[in-house]
Amino acid sequence: MFSVTVRDHMMIAHSLRGEVFGPAQRLHGATYVVEATFRRAELDGDGVVVDIGRAGEELRAVLAELDYRNLDDEPSLSGLNTTTEALAGHIGDRLAERVRAGALGQAAQELDGLVVTLHESPVASASYEREL
Amino acid sequence: MFSVTVRDHMMIAHSLRGEVFGPAQRLHGATYVVEATFRRAELDGDGVVVDIGRAGEELRAVLAELDYRNLDDEPSLSGLNTTTEALAGHIGDRLAERVRAGALGQAAQELDGLVVTLHESPVASASYEREL
Amino acid sequence: MFSVTVRDHMMIAHSLRGEVFGPAQRLHGATYVVEATFRRAELDGDGVVVDIGRAGEELRAVLAELDYRNLDDEPSLSGLNTTTEALAGHIGDRLAERVRAGALGQAAQELDGLVVTLHESPVASASYEREL
Amino acid sequence: MFSVTVRDHMMIAHSLRGEVFGPAQRLHGATYVVEATFRRAELDGDGVVVDIGRAGEELRAVLAELDYRNLDDEPSLSGLNTTTEALAGHIGDRLAERVRAGALGQAAQELDGLVVTLHESPVASASYEREL
Amino acid sequence: MFSVTVRDHMMIAHSLRGEVFGPAQRLHGATYVVEATFRRAELDGDGVVVDIGRAGEELRAVLAELDYRNLDDEPSLSGLNTTTEALAGHIGDRLAERVRAGALGQAAQELDGLVVTLHESPVASASYEREL
Amino acid sequence: MFSVTVRDHMMIAHSLRGEVFGPAQRLHGATYVVEATFRRAELDGDGVVVDIGRAGEELRAVLAELDYRNLDDEPSLSGLNTTTEALAGHIGDRLAERVRAGALGQAAQELDGLVVTLHESPVASASYEREL
Repeated sequence: MFSVTVRDHMMIAHSLRGEVFGPAQRLHGATYVVEATFRRAELDGDGVVVDIGRAGEELRAVLAELDYRNLDDEPSLSGLNTTTEALAGHIGDRLAERVRAGALGQAAQELDGLVVTLHESPVASASYEREL
Repeated sequence: MFSVTVRDHMMIAHSLRGEVFGPAQRLHGATYVVEATFRRAELDGDGVVVDIGRAGEELRAVLAELDYRNLDDEPSLSGLNTTTEALAGHIGDRLAERVRAGALGQAAQELDGLVVTLHESPVASASYEREL
Repeated sequence: MFSVTVRDHMMIAHSLRGEVFGPAQRLHGATYVVEATFRRAELDGDGVVVDIGRAGEELRAVLAELDYRNLDDEPSLSGLNTTTEALAGHIGDRLAERVRAGALGQAAQELDGLVVTLHESPVASASYEREL
Repeated sequence: MFSVTVRDHMMIAHSLRGEVFGPAQRLHGATYVVEATFRRAELDGDGVVVDIGRAGEELRAVLAELDYRNLDDEPSLSGLNTTTEALAGHIGDRLAERVRAGALGQAAQELDGLVVTLHESPVASASYEREL
Repeated sequence: MFSVTVRDHMMIAHSLRGEVFGPAQRLHGATYVVEATFRRAELDGDGVVVDIGRAGEELRAVLAELDYRNLDDEPSLSGLNTTTEALAGHIGDRLAERVRAGALGQAAQELDGLVVTLHESPVASASYEREL
Repeated sequence: MFSVTVRDHMMIAHSLRGEVFGPAQRLHGATYVVEATFRRAELDGDGVVVDIGRAGEELRAVLAELDYRNLDDEPSLSGLNTTTEALAGHIGDRLAERVRAGALGQAAQELDGLVVTLHESPVASASYEREL
């Protein structure tokens, strides 16, 4: 099994709903360092899992929808409690849609799965893993 | 599948038993950077795998039992060769006991597993993975 | 010349005023990883620049005034364009006030200077250096 | 399940074949930070997955075959498009050969698998995972 | 004194001239993680040392002249032994030229100095510091 | 001004004397990640500050005197309260002795100064800077 991982980041504001979140119920923010890993059983004819340049562009495109924004006001996240876990899930599903729509080329249809990890601080991160 | 990871560290002295360990048979020490990852198939009603604040507190509580100590003298580790692997196992099992005892709340009973990783230096680390 | 550095972080929301800031004029946020370095010509009688534990507590106290907040609404930052540079200056001056007020003990009066660095992302940071 | 990871690096020149690689078709280079992870269900009698010192030496031996070289001229890589993924595969297979030949001792015959990860830059990496 | 630092990277091939370099006399390569720090006594009217976005673009422009290339064949480096130190000097001087030519705007004329650091591996880096 | 930095680490046990150190008065330990920076106004004829390979060997030789040891029992540290600051000073002075004795070659006699930094954990470090 092979995989490639690309990394980028976004800087957002948001607040969390629920007493469990304590001070994070207030409007605050985060720099999320985001890693997207694409998995595949065998390499393609070029010797890659996926074109790493295009993978980075797709991750950037998904993050650009959220970057430099207050997530509490984002229609695309309406109703979502934007925890780090939930954002990992949202980003992973958006990447999966793009892969299925051909954004990473025909060969990427053979990808087996992806993992999205968001690092919110040096001491906390969350991941979401799904099939493709 | 979702996961959250919290990170902390401890500073301990110890020695290892067995010729295979060479100079590490002498009393020396380590700063262990410790990551604990909690896994779960679906997010709970608050949109989390586990309350990340409480997860960090539980990890701190387990590390506090060892932090700033000479592990060679710790009754709780009696008979254990405190390799990085073995310490990862010990910490993982201690965290699992606490989760089962309710330390992370009722929802945490639905956790599927955990992984504990100890980084002993920039060039070496060890992990232990188990079900919950 | 000796120095000690302590590190912590805070998660804030804010917006920047001025066309130069482009999309950062929108309400967004950041995880700031903050380092505070204390400098001194010679070590004190205990062999330290400053009690590293108390240094960390003072940094935490200063960051707690801003952590999990929308800086646009903070009275203490009124009128300040909260760029990374300006926040480094604000935090450095707040630490200096505390040192002069004795928060790090009498010996800390012999500190020569401090540096505060804020990392806003893996690709950008800012620092402020001042005498004590 | 337990694992240990050792880390080293190598500095190589190479070029990639295929239009998909854009400017990377030119002769360029990389510092590859390489991690090798060895997995095993249970610890051995010494309390380890594998002798971490010997694991590091084996990784070094494999990297030494490529370090400070132009991979385009390496007979051992003849015909291979030396993408990061393909190099992870090559290094993983070379490590596996050595383990089977006894380089990590008799106990290492009980290893279940290994993972090799190559970090080519702060924003891109690739991994290869196989059984042992 | 204030400063801002931006970070980027480049991937190059080169060889070094001189017996002191041992195996690095062979054609090999490196991923250089490059930091450029700009220093200034006081912040400008926007509260910044320099527009951090433009600073990043200027660093990218300078690195693009070398990225994905074999430095042994670069006319602009003709006669230069491209050690990490010498490359830091080259990049620092190129950035200084651009600042003086107005690439960072009029306010940047008040910059006091810059530092360029190249990390060639996890265990080695070099810096060059100059006035502006 | 140019500089080169090499990095290594050591794993030691020790205890600190003085109530200010709280739990660190107990026998514990640390992995110290150690950076040594050598400074020089101009590069030598090979285009370097110092032979980076030899610099790394000298740092290793100095750390080998302490590595995998209980510093409380080290005759060479007798009477020293082995705080991170004091160890940075000790290592810096040992490196300076070696440079003056010619360990880095004749050209290294033109070095202007050195800085030694010890990272004791992800949240604390100490530095010592001196002339050569």
